[in-house]
Amino acid sequence: MSAYQNLHSAFRKIAYYQHCLTILEWDQEVMMPGGGAEERANAIAEMSALEHSAMNQPEIQTWLDVCAEADLTADEAANVREMRRAWQNSNLMPEELVREQAVANALCQQQWTTLRPQNDWAGFSTSFTRVVELAREQARIRQQALNTPTPYDAMLGLYSCGDSASLIDETFAQLKAILPEMINTVCERQNKTTRVNVRGEFPVAQQQQLSHNIAATLGFDFNAGRLDISAHPFSTGNPGDQRITTRYRTDDFLDALFGTVHETGHASYEAGLPKAWRGQPLGLARNMSIHESQSLFFEKHIGTTDAFCALLAKQVQTLFSADVSLSADELKQAVCWVEPGLIRVSADELSYPLHIIVRHEIESALINGDMEVSDIPDAWNQKMQQYLGLNTQGNNKDGCMQDVHWPSGAFGYFPSYTLGAVNAAQLRAAMETKIGDLNALIAANEIAQITQWLHDNIWQWGSRLESQELMQRATGKPTNAAALITHFERQYGL
Amino acid sequence: MSAYQNLHSAFRKIAYYQHCLTILEWDQEVMMPGGGAEERANAIAEMSALEHSAMNQPEIQTWLDVCAEADLTADEAANVREMRRAWQNSNLMPEELVREQAVANALCQQQWTTLRPQNDWAGFSTSFTRVVELAREQARIRQQALNTPTPYDAMLGLYSCGDSASLIDETFAQLKAILPEMINTVCERQNKTTRVNVRGEFPVAQQQQLSHNIAATLGFDFNAGRLDISAHPFSTGNPGDQRITTRYRTDDFLDALFGTVHETGHASYEAGLPKAWRGQPLGLARNMSIHESQSLFFEKHIGTTDAFCALLAKQVQTLFSADVSLSADELKQAVCWVEPGLIRVSADELSYPLHIIVRHEIESALINGDMEVSDIPDAWNQKMQQYLGLNTQGNNKDGCMQDVHWPSGAFGYFPSYTLGAVNAAQLRAAMETKIGDLNALIAANEIAQITQWLHDNIWQWGSRLESQELMQRATGKPTNAAALITHFERQYGL
Ligand SMILES: [Zn+2]
Ligand SMILES: [Zn+2]
Repeated sequence: MSAYQNLHSAFRKIAYYQHCLTILEWDQEVMMPGGGAEERANAIAEMSALEHSAMNQPEIQTWLDVCAEADLTADEAANVREMRRAWQNSNLMPEELVREQAVANALCQQQWTTLRPQNDWAGFSTSFTRVVELAREQARIRQQALNTPTPYDAMLGLYSCGDSASLIDETFAQLKAILPEMINTVCERQNKTTRVNVRGEFPVAQQQQLSHNIAATLGFDFNAGRLDISAHPFSTGNPGDQRITTRYRTDDFLDALFGTVHETGHASYEAGLPKAWRGQPLGLARNMSIHESQSLFFEKHIGTTDAFCALLAKQVQTLFSADVSLSADELKQAVCWVEPGLIRVSADELSYPLHIIVRHEIESALINGDMEVSDIPDAWNQKMQQYLGLNTQGNNKDGCMQDVHWPSGAFGYFPSYTLGAVNAAQLRAAMETKIGDLNALIAANEIAQITQWLHDNIWQWGSRLESQELMQRATGKPTNAAALITHFERQYGL
Repeated sequence: MSAYQNLHSAFRKIAYYQHCLTILEWDQEVMMPGGGAEERANAIAEMSALEHSAMNQPEIQTWLDVCAEADLTADEAANVREMRRAWQNSNLMPEELVREQAVANALCQQQWTTLRPQNDWAGFSTSFTRVVELAREQARIRQQALNTPTPYDAMLGLYSCGDSASLIDETFAQLKAILPEMINTVCERQNKTTRVNVRGEFPVAQQQQLSHNIAATLGFDFNAGRLDISAHPFSTGNPGDQRITTRYRTDDFLDALFGTVHETGHASYEAGLPKAWRGQPLGLARNMSIHESQSLFFEKHIGTTDAFCALLAKQVQTLFSADVSLSADELKQAVCWVEPGLIRVSADELSYPLHIIVRHEIESALINGDMEVSDIPDAWNQKMQQYLGLNTQGNNKDGCMQDVHWPSGAFGYFPSYTLGAVNAAQLRAAMETKIGDLNALIAANEIAQITQWLHDNIWQWGSRLESQELMQRATGKPTNAAALITHFERQYGL
């Protein structure tokens, strides 16, 4: 076998191990009774170790080096590029540091679960300081090996490879410059209107039917996927088998429903990846910023059109009891209501980027060594005041302690949420110049045209192009905040 | 590490691979959408190969040989005995034959799915002849290595290790001598009574509730297990996480319900295995004859008592619509009705052993080379006539082609069903001398005493004892048909 063939079959095997892990973890969140927890945790650890050692067998490096000189097709060369990337991510770190991080991050995340509700920053910061120290070491090693401009850039590569810190800074600067005022304008205007009450009693069975119908309308194929319930909505799966979850509150149907719409976006991307490259790194989704652009395209673009709200109003009328009657306009008002608050996960579309910018500014300074853990609460409060006019002094549980990302060591993840929003708006603008107005297409029952465009321009490419090449090809330019700003202006009549 | 410690950790690892396979296969039957089939089949094949190569690494044999001379505790020595057994089952066969069998059995089983409904014996027998040839080769190799009296004995060891062909022949001879006449007597008496109609309209949701309640009553712990729906009822799982399934027909609730009772017996055995030996061969269930004795104890002993039928009648009254009203006596009549028929899986308790004896006599002759494939249809018809008074001439689809076992190469499996019935009755008799009448215990709400006795005498032993040592210890004698015959006499007032 050639070096390329060896790599091909080694990565195919690794993908089967990942298939097992995907199902073990999905089952753990969605199906497994509590009694199975201990044995399952051990089985997952065993499979992860197996995957790790398959990726770190010494032959991989040899084969990668031979392939660098080999005569490969462009697709094969791109596959090798992605193999090397995956191999580096797994292989760069000394085993000792990997183990230390696993222990420190697990401990900190575990303490966070109890210390956050107690608002105990002092207790938390001890174990969190260790997490940051080790993450800085990780960033330093990655920076040296990958030759990135900053340590933080090296961390970004784990989630949004191809999107540099300078691109993010530029994009976020554009948003920071206009969002605070935009939010004020929208809130002042909202004050003059009456907010419709969309709360009520919504039985879970009907909500499940609603989520099922809407997912199907958006193209989710239930012969190649499932929709289940879990504590936190997520999307996972294997080729031909996408698994999304949501959770239901009986007093509010919009929460679960838009969770489903969001996860359907993620699942559609996965389902549309190139079949010819199944089980190879080239066949995987590009990165988190592109992934989130697909879920946010479904949630924030398709999901907020008049036509989609009309379709939704009809479903709501059929499924829930006669006294629930909401017009398309009323639903749209609820979905687009702007109201700055302390919590990221319940933030509206305009506030959300500012939540991310607070986190990005702090975590990049932290990783680059320009800020210490003890500075975080004040920095957080100061930035929240400045961007959203909200005070978090003494309220760290709803401030810098609110997210699981940092205690679990995931520095560099946050920007992908807002890069996703930016990419989604940019893709919508490009799509509309090609196939026409999104709202009109949905009104004309042509959602399939929309998903076809996304398939042709994003999904079918897998990891063939770098993220900015992909955006350039699909939209004519790299990631840029202009389209998102235009979208906000149009959405809120500014 | 000592050789024993090396074996301990190698088998612990193999158990984690089996954990993955268990969940991949459960998910495939119960949860997976059709689109995932191809990738899942490949992932399962990959994991099976991994398990196989972990079992066949050359060090295993060395460690086993060192352990044969080592100073081990009795438990450790028994664990090594079971390790060697598992290793031999996996290792005895030449890779080439394993591969050939995998292909031939899969092909024959696949053809069987379409040729059985067409009653096409001629088409079927071509690929089936190859299956038999390879199974004979397998039996010959196993016989030589394990030094068993006959080739068929060597096949039995795969499913009911410790139960010899001569023990089976003796047991079956006792049953064959009395059952045909017993069935005649019971049927004649039944002719003089009116058969109660238990068919009706039973919505699936209520049937699920009924199955759930009854499983819980029998001690199934839903914090350490699940009950789901699948095409064929089965029981599987991992430590702390037992998974049983059933299927629902809306015109008959007894079918699904007694399926659940049966699978709850299997699951209770698994849940009661010794926790200290989790992940080691010593911690596994003894063999199929013991396993089936537990499911049949639940189904045929607990399930047919007056007290259980009374408990059931109450549940039926609460759960189904008012016009379904069945007394305990009526339920018992339905559950114990005797009516010889062509199909094994729907056979009553008295006919069932005769179905097994037909198969056992044919498959043992086939594997030992005393019968050829072309002889099967006539032999089947002749034996069905003789034992059950039924004709299968020209009706092979409901005769010798009805089971999946033979086309899939599982020769030697059938006897465990009837050995299980024999063991169950023998365990009941022994239990009743210790803790009193089964019916009285259930009437007194003391099912926990019954399961405690099974736990102490069967479940907690795992594979510590050989099957006949286990029966001897629990009942004072090896497997013997006397108790089952007594049970039949009592059950049918003979
Ligand atoms: Zn998302
Ligand atoms: Zn069974």
